[in-house]
Amino acid sequence: MNRKGIFITLEGGDGSGKTTMIQRLAKFMEEEGYPVITTREPGGIEISEKIRSIILDPAHTSMDARTEALLYAAARRQHLVEKVKPAIEQGAIVLCDRFVDSSLVYQGFARGIGIEEVASINRFAVDDWEPDATFYLDIEPELGLARINASRGAEMDRLDMESISFHHKVREAYLELARKFPERITIVDASPAPEQVEQVLRDLLKKRFVQNFSI
Amino acid sequence: MNRKGIFITLEGGDGSGKTTMIQRLAKFMEEEGYPVITTREPGGIEISEKIRSIILDPAHTSMDARTEALLYAAARRQHLVEKVKPAIEQGAIVLCDRFVDSSLVYQGFARGIGIEEVASINRFAVDDWEPDATFYLDIEPELGLARINASRGAEMDRLDMESISFHHKVREAYLELARKFPERITIVDASPAPEQVEQVLRDLLKKRFVQNFSI
Repeated sequence: MNRKGIFITLEGGDGSGKTTMIQRLAKFMEEEGYPVITTREPGGIEISEKIRSIILDPAHTSMDARTEALLYAAARRQHLVEKVKPAIEQGAIVLCDRFVDSSLVYQGFARGIGIEEVASINRFAVDDWEPDATFYLDIEPELGLARINASRGAEMDRLDMESISFHHKVREAYLELARKFPERITIVDASPAPEQVEQVLRDLLKKRFVQNFSI
Repeated sequence: MNRKGIFITLEGGDGSGKTTMIQRLAKFMEEEGYPVITTREPGGIEISEKIRSIILDPAHTSMDARTEALLYAAARRQHLVEKVKPAIEQGAIVLCDRFVDSSLVYQGFARGIGIEEVASINRFAVDDWEPDATFYLDIEPELGLARINASRGAEMDRLDMESISFHHKVREAYLELARKFPERITIVDASPAPEQVEQVLRDLLKKRFVQNFSI
């Protein structure tokens, strides 16, 4: 693909520091003078916001898992076409918080539809707009959850312990995707301090895309 | 597939008499004592109706063709799961006015996304709930349009003439689908009088599904 800009997605489980890292990377690249936008679906795109509100409406308890997956793919498509694609075509670096991989892991795997099944509708949704690079922020679920609890001043409870096995499965699914698409997905150890993780991500960006970053 | 009921879809272009034939067949089968429901998407299913209202909102001029196709597939999925599937599992004969084939023809072909592309997301949407039989009501576009104009007391105008070539392409796409899926799709000549078309459809139903219809 011959694009003017760069399309980068960040993926990871709860407490992996994804959102913090996107903000830090954007700040850094802006200071370096690069045009950066950060986004996450539905991202203020009217059609995507309306689709999301159908998904999240608590009255819709009868929503089928495949209906939900198709709606996520539809919201993704419109966000891509209206926000991500125009920015990249103008030469921007787009940092997107979650993308197709999240659907593969959470809907395909966790909701039991099947990763390849969910991948098929997402291939339709993104057409040839795969990310140029995806950074998976990998963390032991126990550590991720402990971080979240620390930030809200709580200790791990019974429900947290139950969810741990779910998050272990999510992590396994992410690691399998990274093994399947090694050219696109890089596994980044998210357990060190934020400064160290940020430095690793800066180095990866420099190595893969930008030769003249002063880092 | 081992279903208690029967899932039948009717397809066809403008003026093919699809809606009339569904009503006539339903009336006939009800009189024969069979449990019949007639439906068409979104069919009063709340989630599907909300999805359809996003598709049809005239403010959404920026809606991408693939977003639209995904939304149609999502509305179809929920209508299938909430309305069609429960009726068939209870042993009903479901007559559905348009289904996947309409998306293949109108979105896949006419909107230019590609029939196989649109087929892939619809396979996801219907999972293993393909129709048991599909009747394609085939009519020359000129005749179909003349029927519509006659019913509204108008003559064919310049815009009608332009749309004729579009309807010829739609017809070609339907005929190609019927050639591709001869086991499922039967081409029914819709140009004779309604009584004759209805008789052909009754005979097809009898031959394919119901041995003890008194027709």
